[in-house]
Amino acid sequence: MSNSGGGMGSRMQALCEERQREVCAQLSALDGTAFRFDAWQRPGGGGGVSAVLADGPLFEKAGVNVSTVWGELDEAALRRLGGSERSFFATGLSMVLHPRNPFVPTMHANFRYLRRGEDAWFGGGSDLTPMYPQRDDVIAFHAAWKAVCDRHDPGYYPRFKRWCDEYFYLPHRGETRGVGGIFFDDLRGDEEALFAFVADCCAHVLMPYLPLVERHRNDAYGERERRFQLFRRGRYVEFNLVYDRGTAFGLATGGRTESILMSLPPLAAWEYGYTPEPGTAEAQAMTYFAPQDWLGLEATPHAR
Amino acid sequence: MSNSGGGMGSRMQALCEERQREVCAQLSALDGTAFRFDAWQRPGGGGGVSAVLADGPLFEKAGVNVSTVWGELDEAALRRLGGSERSFFATGLSMVLHPRNPFVPTMHANFRYLRRGEDAWFGGGSDLTPMYPQRDDVIAFHAAWKAVCDRHDPGYYPRFKRWCDEYFYLPHRGETRGVGGIFFDDLRGDEEALFAFVADCCAHVLMPYLPLVERHRNDAYGERERRFQLFRRGRYVEFNLVYDRGTAFGLATGGRTESILMSLPPLAAWEYGYTPEPGTAEAQAMTYFAPQDWLGLEATPHAR
Repeated sequence: MSNSGGGMGSRMQALCEERQREVCAQLSALDGTAFRFDAWQRPGGGGGVSAVLADGPLFEKAGVNVSTVWGELDEAALRRLGGSERSFFATGLSMVLHPRNPFVPTMHANFRYLRRGEDAWFGGGSDLTPMYPQRDDVIAFHAAWKAVCDRHDPGYYPRFKRWCDEYFYLPHRGETRGVGGIFFDDLRGDEEALFAFVADCCAHVLMPYLPLVERHRNDAYGERERRFQLFRRGRYVEFNLVYDRGTAFGLATGGRTESILMSLPPLAAWEYGYTPEPGTAEAQAMTYFAPQDWLGLEATPHAR
Repeated sequence: MSNSGGGMGSRMQALCEERQREVCAQLSALDGTAFRFDAWQRPGGGGGVSAVLADGPLFEKAGVNVSTVWGELDEAALRRLGGSERSFFATGLSMVLHPRNPFVPTMHANFRYLRRGEDAWFGGGSDLTPMYPQRDDVIAFHAAWKAVCDRHDPGYYPRFKRWCDEYFYLPHRGETRGVGGIFFDDLRGDEEALFAFVADCCAHVLMPYLPLVERHRNDAYGERERRFQLFRRGRYVEFNLVYDRGTAFGLATGGRTESILMSLPPLAAWEYGYTPEPGTAEAQAMTYFAPQDWLGLEATPHAR
């Protein structure tokens, strides 16, 4: 295996790097705040560029990361990740946007190409975590991702939507992290077709999200909404640190900690036994954190 | 295996319950705020009482939990915990104290008795996480625990002190969680002698800590110290969610989530790439988060 992960590894890396620059430029213009770009190298092989916008009027924290790493898994990493093949290559683009206004949803996206030994695959997706979900917003976000998927395979959206619900699930809370979107992993087969799909996703990564930002960035809020936002962000932290595979992979392979944990919110709260009062907007919000058939594609809503 | 975990299970349970009441009464008097007591049952077997003091003038959050649970591990729990024996019993007392004042250290203690099948053992310990560690405080805390240990076995403190440094370690940060204390697990053998030791630990669980509270509870602080406290609490969250065995065991065995995650701080922050300015109190603090021979017991400081 070459360090570049083969020709596809280089193409995916170039795509991620180009998209990082464009996405950062767009978000920066939207917020009026510059990103800070940190180039870093990984001692065991590879490196990346982490771009962070902190303390903007729109984004309390926005991180857009590109990393391309390779090397040999050590014993601890093998135990954590499974399998026996040690050599790996991974390149990807990931972003997490934590808005300041509790009415603007948090958004996550990640697209990646991985190799272990001779086995290579694509993974990725984008999902939405509103603190106060609005049905129209959720439908619009899902419909936009469905449109991207449908251009490549009409089977993608239903499959990846369901996968997203299953992946971003906190069993100890009995809740999904947010309202889902699409998630896929282990995509193998016609690499050209898969790359075309992933490149299309990357090209449109902000498209399903930006209308929601525009719609809610000037919504009025106070202490109450801020408190609920910090509570919901606690759940976000729980998911990322306990269950997220990307975080586990990154920490296990000696990735750059600050880049991996860039996904964590700037501030989060844990309040023992907090449950919203029935009938409030917060109680209503909690009903959204379960898989639902937003686009009405199934005869009956699918059960977990 | 009986539900009570055998005679020792019942004795340990009774000890934990008694100590919970006493510890809560002491902390409550110190803070001037009452604990809220929540009794709960675990569907698969057992239950507990979670006691929480929130938003007090001294403690921003203090949790003292007793749980006694038993049952059969499912497939997911077996994978997560290892081994093949399904039946388990666990009883224990745990507490995490998150003071409001950044100069008052966070304290954690946990003492437990576990069985899997016919195999039974004790575990436990107490460790200190100051945000702004003071050498005298750290030495006093360690010396107090050494005194408890020495009454039972002069080999305990050196062994359990080192174990604590190794256990409360964040490899992805290259930092210990705090300044250590004692930690032990898998203690098997003369159950009467071990119980006497654990009971002594439980009886003195606040003794090494309370002098530090009195010394620092009126220290003046501002935004700067609060910010550093929230940053350090982020590390606390990372340890508990990524590495802590008790948290993993609790979540994997379908424990009561609110009681397990009671250990998380009320508020925590993640700021990308934060490093204290050289020469500041915060930079000085960071030098404490590596194993050190506080009591000067070793010829040379032990290396990790």
